[in-house]
Amino acid sequence: MGNRRKRILSGMRPTGKMHLGNYVGALENWVKLQGEYENFHLIADYHALTTNPDTSYIFENTIDMVIDWIAVGIDPEKSPIFRQSQIKEHTELFLIFSMLITTARLERNPTLKEQIRDLKLETITYGHLGYPVLQAADILLYKGEVVPVGEDQAPHVEITREIARKFNTTYDKVFPLPEVKLTDFARLPGLDGQKMSKSVGNTILIADEYNKIKEKMKKAFTDPQKLRKGDPGRPDTCLVYTYHTKFNPDETEQIYRDCTSGKLGCVDCKMKCSKAINSVISPFREKRKELEKDRGKILDIIIDGEKRAREVAEETMSEVRKAMLLG
Amino acid sequence: MGNRRKRILSGMRPTGKMHLGNYVGALENWVKLQGEYENFHLIADYHALTTNPDTSYIFENTIDMVIDWIAVGIDPEKSPIFRQSQIKEHTELFLIFSMLITTARLERNPTLKEQIRDLKLETITYGHLGYPVLQAADILLYKGEVVPVGEDQAPHVEITREIARKFNTTYDKVFPLPEVKLTDFARLPGLDGQKMSKSVGNTILIADEYNKIKEKMKKAFTDPQKLRKGDPGRPDTCLVYTYHTKFNPDETEQIYRDCTSGKLGCVDCKMKCSKAINSVISPFREKRKELEKDRGKILDIIIDGEKRAREVAEETMSEVRKAMLLG
Repeated sequence: MGNRRKRILSGMRPTGKMHLGNYVGALENWVKLQGEYENFHLIADYHALTTNPDTSYIFENTIDMVIDWIAVGIDPEKSPIFRQSQIKEHTELFLIFSMLITTARLERNPTLKEQIRDLKLETITYGHLGYPVLQAADILLYKGEVVPVGEDQAPHVEITREIARKFNTTYDKVFPLPEVKLTDFARLPGLDGQKMSKSVGNTILIADEYNKIKEKMKKAFTDPQKLRKGDPGRPDTCLVYTYHTKFNPDETEQIYRDCTSGKLGCVDCKMKCSKAINSVISPFREKRKELEKDRGKILDIIIDGEKRAREVAEETMSEVRKAMLLG
Repeated sequence: MGNRRKRILSGMRPTGKMHLGNYVGALENWVKLQGEYENFHLIADYHALTTNPDTSYIFENTIDMVIDWIAVGIDPEKSPIFRQSQIKEHTELFLIFSMLITTARLERNPTLKEQIRDLKLETITYGHLGYPVLQAADILLYKGEVVPVGEDQAPHVEITREIARKFNTTYDKVFPLPEVKLTDFARLPGLDGQKMSKSVGNTILIADEYNKIKEKMKKAFTDPQKLRKGDPGRPDTCLVYTYHTKFNPDETEQIYRDCTSGKLGCVDCKMKCSKAINSVISPFREKRKELEKDRGKILDIIIDGEKRAREVAEETMSEVRKAMLLG
């Protein structure tokens, strides 16, 4: 392989406009990695069906999401952006891999157990059980060698490695065994301290104007024991402080001191935080406005990404077919 | 739809040279139906992987099987013959359908329970559990309206109907609800009275010469209470008699009488049976020899079938995508 850059496959379901959690938990990392690695960015529209068969929102959400991906600095020339549903090879490899893993192994998947509990599912679809098999196909179709994921996704990557190993020993050595790359700063809490999620309404979006950021930030939860300016605060338990550490590193130390001493009130602290967030995301927001003007062009960018991704996918599948002596 | 002929999807795993059970249980029917229906004949090579990941035998087995299909009278011009693994749309529809059925429903499938018992499986692969989902994709990709199956496969067709209904109500009315067409004469026993199977070695092949047929027939089990000519036999419990009813209808009545009375001994009865079988299959055998001379041409026939099947498959998938608003 010589000096070839290692390949990364990273993806996201088409959830529409991106929020700060998406940025901090994934996109920022993707942008950083695109110099060092050869990145492939998957729009996981089939994965979206595992928990919701409704597809009516998928197209607009895809465009909105990709606008933000590009706005934060992903270069689609360097790193193809493509929809899973438009590259048939994902489903071919999914089917082939489905023969190489037992249902018992998939039922043991801790992420699935968590989802069943969180979503209070009585029963799951067959496709939902196979989520990690499809993910293995996504990664290995591009021979992903590194998978940047949060801790909760690490067990899926373990399944990918098992499947790759099983294929290689059953047929021929076609696939690498991808390595997990845990992201540094995996989760930013929502404004209510819970997991950040658009459906809960506790997010700040990359598209939000400064006024909107301030307005949302006003409602953010802070230390409940700090009722007014002068009360000493506990920044370590305050989500606004978490935002400072991320978006306002230069002032963080000072804020910690002034919150703890009581000198800094929550209203002022939130204003500082809003300002810091705004200064990070305002260039993205401006770029987003620019891109928003021609949504058709975004689709063209995706279609172009699909062409390039498909070439890689077809090449891998032809190796797979050769190894399996299929046609 | 007017006077359009109804579509039938029927398929078989690539098991190589066909035996009399294949002929009586399926092929004879396929040939009969090709005037009345528009037939599609699937070589189920992906299905073969559900119980055995070894693929080394698949290509030669495919050619041998198709030689026999054509030898018995299937007209590949009329009825395309194609490999599942060569038409990517099977796997696309499989994945989409996997989101429309629960694992609980698949676990209740009686055929699966039987297979687990028969094959003494400790655990099954994820793909094996999804066998009926892939079968639903096979049938519905061609909008099969009629599925000629043995009784043991009828529960699978019920799953196909459920999936079609679910897709149609969730997205848009794309699929027909296929009807089961039970075949008249579903099972011919093997020469030892057990299920006919090449792995057991109790078959007569379409390729077998007259001498070979006689030799195999000599070892066939008969009524264990009829030890020599003169003893009265019980044709209703004798598998050779079953073969007579199928291959020797003109003499059947006489044979019944002469077996029962003891006048006809088993050796003579078997000779009559061998002769009758030979007279049915010898034209197939001659055609097979002809076809065997150019196995490359058989592959061309399959590739041509794939081209025509793919057109239908692509059209269905474009309706599916439109209904789901995918891309």
